[in-house]
Amino acid sequence: MAIEFDTGLPSIRQIQTLIRDQQTVELKLLTGDVFNGSVVWQDAHAICLSVDGQTTLAMRSAVAYIKITG
Amino acid sequence: MAIEFDTGLPSIRQIQTLIRDQQTVELKLLTGDVFNGSVVWQDAHAICLSVDGQTTLAMRSAVAYIKITG
Amino acid sequence: MAIEFDTGLPSIRQIQTLIRDQQTVELKLLTGDVFNGSVVWQDAHAICLSVDGQTTLAMRSAVAYIKITG
Amino acid sequence: MAIEFDTGLPSIRQIQTLIRDQQTVELKLLTGDVFNGSVVWQDAHAICLSVDGQTTLAMRSAVAYIKITG
Amino acid sequence: MAIEFDTGLPSIRQIQTLIRDQQTVELKLLTGDVFNGSVVWQDAHAICLSVDGQTTLAMRSAVAYIKITG
Amino acid sequence: MAIEFDTGLPSIRQIQTLIRDQQTVELKLLTGDVFNGSVVWQDAHAICLSVDGQTTLAMRSAVAYIKITG
Repeated sequence: MAIEFDTGLPSIRQIQTLIRDQQTVELKLLTGDVFNGSVVWQDAHAICLSVDGQTTLAMRSAVAYIKITG
Repeated sequence: MAIEFDTGLPSIRQIQTLIRDQQTVELKLLTGDVFNGSVVWQDAHAICLSVDGQTTLAMRSAVAYIKITG
Repeated sequence: MAIEFDTGLPSIRQIQTLIRDQQTVELKLLTGDVFNGSVVWQDAHAICLSVDGQTTLAMRSAVAYIKITG
Repeated sequence: MAIEFDTGLPSIRQIQTLIRDQQTVELKLLTGDVFNGSVVWQDAHAICLSVDGQTTLAMRSAVAYIKITG
Repeated sequence: MAIEFDTGLPSIRQIQTLIRDQQTVELKLLTGDVFNGSVVWQDAHAICLSVDGQTTLAMRSAVAYIKITG
Repeated sequence: MAIEFDTGLPSIRQIQTLIRDQQTVELKLLTGDVFNGSVVWQDAHAICLSVDGQTTLAMRSAVAYIKITG
């Protein structure tokens, strides 16, 4: 389930930009759960979100999409 | 979740053609979400769409199909 | 998500035969979508279908089954 | 999506026995589809079933379980 | 879909203990199916269960959880 | 389905901290099942939870998210 975590890839860089700029994202999981929050960090397995101050590890294998909302 | 991102593969080249020609696609995710928009870029992890001017990263592991609609 | 695309494997060869003979298949995705059409090409990531003249890339990771119908 | 197709593994050998003995199986996919039939062959990507005389390639990544029914 | 089948890993060892002690487990698949039975063997692709005397190969990629119930 | 189990990765370290501090987590699976409990151990394939004193192996490939709740 690990991904090739190449920081030069556009998708990894786009998420790094989201972290740096503290932009709001809408992240949807395969379960149908939708989180609106900011990205705290990413690694090969997970995208860590802050949603209303609560820490949530969204597993990459379960992420359907990330929309940049603000 | 990374894919072997070989730009010589037909599926990668077809998506590159869609990007170059700014063709409209219908992309469906395993969640059932359907996006109608254009492809902005692709990498090993994601297909970046522009849908009504909004940037959406569709995770490759969650993509069910891509229909070329226009 | 890439597969070991060994053209000697029975499943790859069977799909090559379907392409050559322009046989009709029923392909079902994990979303529940069912496509009836012919296979145009396959690569490590996708199976390209022609369904009522429209090009559809079915992602291999999302394919549940392929039935040979005609 | 390819699997390590080591013919010495118990799960691969069990399916080979099912093929040789033409035993009936119940195979369920992640879509909820249930097939009752016999296994014709297996490779790294698919399990080929004969169900009421029709050939069906069940993709391994979509198989939930195989029950040996007869 | 194969896993790194390292018999030193805690999860592999825990299942070996279940086999040795013939403990009852509740195994749930991504389909929602729940099996109550004992584990007969495991390999890189499957966990073989005996449920009411019937042999069932639960594919690892489709297993959601295993609860140790007795 | 094995993951690159690099103990230096933030997501692995965060779960190690949860284990050490016996924090309560909410873990949701792709089946929709939600477990509230503490993490006992993790390895490349599973996250072992204690939920009301019962041992549950949550398969990593089936985990949607982990929320740190207490």
